[in-house]
This record gives sequence, structure tokens and C-alpha cells, in this order.
Amino acid sequence: MKAIVTATSQIKVQFYDLDPMNIVWHGNYARFFEIGRGALLDKIGYNYMAMKESGYAWPVIDMHIRYYRPLELRQTAEITAGITEWENRLKISYLISHMETGKKITSGHTVHVALDIQSQEMQWETPPVLREKLSPYLP
Amino acid sequence: MKAIVTATSQIKVQFYDLDPMNIVWHGNYARFFEIGRGALLDKIGYNYMAMKESGYAWPVIDMHIRYYRPLELRQTAEITAGITEWENRLKISYLISHMETGKKITSGHTVHVALDIQSQEMQWETPPVLREKLSPYLP
Amino acid sequence: MKAIVTATSQIKVQFYDLDPMNIVWHGNYARFFEIGRGALLDKIGYNYMAMKESGYAWPVIDMHIRYYRPLELRQTAEITAGITEWENRLKISYLISHMETGKKITSGHTVHVALDIQSQEMQWETPPVLREKLSPYLP
Amino acid sequence: MKAIVTATSQIKVQFYDLDPMNIVWHGNYARFFEIGRGALLDKIGYNYMAMKESGYAWPVIDMHIRYYRPLELRQTAEITAGITEWENRLKISYLISHMETGKKITSGHTVHVALDIQSQEMQWETPPVLREKLSPYLP
Repeated sequence: MKAIVTATSQIKVQFYDLDPMNIVWHGNYARFFEIGRGALLDKIGYNYMAMKESGYAWPVIDMHIRYYRPLELRQTAEITAGITEWENRLKISYLISHMETGKKITSGHTVHVALDIQSQEMQWETPPVLREKLSPYLP
Repeated sequence: MKAIVTATSQIKVQFYDLDPMNIVWHGNYARFFEIGRGALLDKIGYNYMAMKESGYAWPVIDMHIRYYRPLELRQTAEITAGITEWENRLKISYLISHMETGKKITSGHTVHVALDIQSQEMQWETPPVLREKLSPYLP
Repeated sequence: MKAIVTATSQIKVQFYDLDPMNIVWHGNYARFFEIGRGALLDKIGYNYMAMKESGYAWPVIDMHIRYYRPLELRQTAEITAGITEWENRLKISYLISHMETGKKITSGHTVHVALDIQSQEMQWETPPVLREKLSPYLP
Repeated sequence: MKAIVTATSQIKVQFYDLDPMNIVWHGNYARFFEIGRGALLDKIGYNYMAMKESGYAWPVIDMHIRYYRPLELRQTAEITAGITEWENRLKISYLISHMETGKKITSGHTVHVALDIQSQEMQWETPPVLREKLSPYLP
């Protein structure tokens, strides 16, 4: 992942994450990606509360998940989330791997665009606030 | 959607589907796709129980969702799910639109491969059972 | 259930509702209760949007669920939700049963109190707006 | 909570836990209870895998949740789960409180009965395996 900034989180698989195949239900990875994204946005100082204060929401317009290996009950997974695009839209990439073995479980991305909360208009260029938050990580 | 067979389902948005933006949380569309897929697999006579009896599981190996418009509380959405690939792997495509206006909300796909339950081996060609189930819909 | 007004909904069990025991995960009944409650509140003209307009939120302060029988994939369940207390607090009772056999699956209740959205104060008496909405059903 | 053994877990509230009121949706506490229960059952050496090996499942037959205060985004909560009955049925009690302030958020319990997996019969007395697992904690 060629990201300008990344953050790492861990999750332990719970019973409620599982499906009848005894593995994490595929749709639950959207939650796991969000755990990774939450840690990443906390790190750059631009989490959901800060977004709201800045006047923008950042809805997801695209999500892609690839599944390599299953996750089972009580296993621990490491989620790495990183910002891989930010100029016109915000792209966050994810890698989830087994804590113990390092083996890849899923990867994917979400794409977000800035929505001006007042006007409800999509912004086709990243608003200055994100650039400021990212400035410590830019070359 | 160029599908060999499709099925249509309806859902009414519930309070628990919503996020703090008052719209359906993006990850819940994995559930909505599954509602569509369930109806489609019922229609061709190859739902989860029939899959198990046939000796195969069909785990998701890829999921992609595009978001066009939000869905709000008490709105009704129509889910169309169709089989768009079946020879080497099973690809199901989805379109979710507003019931009343017909406007597009999300689209996407899931890709599934056959897993032999006994040997736990992935099948790189579609097993005959799926071909049989699809035969009424093939040219 | 000795309710002043009831509403009935139906749900079809989906794959994502299931746990590794191949039955609906016990926590999902909170969603099923909410489907029943949504239909009931629509019926009396006091759903979530109408609540907000009336200046009150109605958070859950108590929930109880009893489990009698499991629900399995593709089974259809009938949810009956009814208002069983309304003078000082709002109590909604639920009964979920198998559509085909009528057998009881779960029962339970939720208790809600009015919260004045402006002052964020709990109301220890039911606000007049609920009384009005219920007047057609009162003796 | 007068428990013979307890375990403590922590959770950080995620965006997907929230409802349109910007607080954790009431039904999600069933997941938080399960996180607490998972840690407790790990501690006594009788988690879901060990249960299966012992020939018993332990379905929930009753759940009760009381809500005192809301939980908000990025707050951390502490979950204490303890075994409060075990002779004829297994009762687990829960207390969730704010990490920083110690203030109570929710409390509740789940009741479980042993189900013989082979015969699918409910056991009206606790099977010896649970007694063994609990013996280090009994007077």
C-alpha cells in the first residue's frame, strides 16, 4: 500500500461476526474497514466530529473488498488503513491480515467525496481543511 | 445488467439501517445485496440449503459497491439481482433503486467460487450442479 | 397481549441473520422488534419523523426478550407489536411466531420515555402529543 | 454484581454503532454483552469451541437490558461480565460503564440452558462439564 499516512488497529473475532460457515460473514468487513478508518482519521485529527465542525461530510461513494482467507472465532486480525488518494477525492485503502501469521485475509478500499453540509453539494476538489490535516504527511 | 436470470426483492428502510447522517449506513448494502441474492438463488432452486446438499459452499471472493444516492427512513427500495457470469466462477450483479422514482441508489457485484465442502478445495470450474440449475435460463 | 393497538409485520430469515448454530442470532431480535415497532408507529401516525417534529425523542430504557424456539433460514416469522402502557411511559410488547405453524418464537417488550429534544430532559408523564395519537384507540 | 467469576473487556464506540440520535443504537448492546461473555468464557476455559467439544450448546433463553445513559462516538466503555447463576441454568450478568467516569451506561443479563447437541434435548440441570470449569471459583 503506497499511502501517505497509515494507522493500525486490531480486532478479535466475536461470535456475532460469524456466519453458518463458522467464518466471519463477508459483509462484516465493512465494519472492520471502518475500525481501521476511524483510527486513521483520529490520527490525522480529522475524525467524524472534526469533519462535521469543518462543514463537510465525507460519504462513501465506492467500496471494494477482496477476500483471500477466512477469519475464525477468537482469531485476532490486524487492520492497516492508509490514505492513498486525497487530491480530488479521498481514497482509503485497507489490508487485514492474521495477527499471528501475517497472512492476508482481505484487502480493499473506500472512496469518499466531500459534501458541503450547508449546501448539500458534492465538492469535486478536496477542501482546504483536508490538505491542512494531511500537511504533516505530505512531502 | 446483462444477466441470464434475475430476481427482484423489496426492502423498507428501518431505523436500525441508518447512521448519524440519517441515511442507510454504507455497509448495510451488503445485507441488501444478500436479500437480492437469496431471492435469486431461491428462484433457480439453488439456495444455501441446496448448495450444502450439493456438497459445495460458495464463499464471496470479491464485492464491489457503488453509491449514487442515499436511502432514507421508511423509503422502499427495489433490489434486482442477476447472474452475470457462471462458467468459471459465479458473478452476481445488483441494482438497488428507489421504488417510487426508479432512481438508482447503488449497484455492485459479488463474485463467488465453489468450495468442495469435503476436500475444502476451491473449484476453478463451475461444478455441474450449477450448470443444471441454470439450464432453464441458458440459450 | 392486552394492547390498545397492535400492528403486524412479516420477515423472512436471511443468511446474515444466522449464527454458527444455523439459527437467528439472539441479538437480531432487537432488529425484528424494531420492524414491528416501526409498523405500529406508522399506524398511529407517530413514527420517528413525527416524533422529531413533535419535539420528543423516545429512547429505549428497558428491553426484555424471551426465547422459546429458534428461527431458521428462509422461514417466515410474523411480528405483532402492541402498545401495552402509555400513561407515564411507553411500553411496547412484541410477539414473534412462525408464520406457517403459529408457534411462538420470542416475546418481549421495550420501554421508552419521552425526552424533550430542546431541553434534553426526560418527561415523567407522557406528553399530550402521544395521547392525541392514541385517542382513536382509547376507550 | 454478586458473581462467582468476572471478566472485564473494553470497547471503543465506532461510527457503525451509532443511530440517528448520535448514540449507540440500543440493540447493539447485545453485541457488547457478547464481547463481555466471550472474555468471561475464555477465562474459565469454556468458550464456544470448548462447549461444542463438550457436546453442549448454550442458547440464550432470556435477555434483559436496562439503559441508564447513552454512549457516544469514540468513547470507551468497560464491560464487566460475571456468572451469577450456574446450578440449573447459566446466568451471566453484565455491567457497562464509561471508562473515564465510571458512570453506569447499561446493565443486564442473559440466561442460557445447556442443549445436548446429539439429542437436541434441553438439560434442566447444569452438565458436569460446567461444574468442572467453575470449580476453581467455587467456595
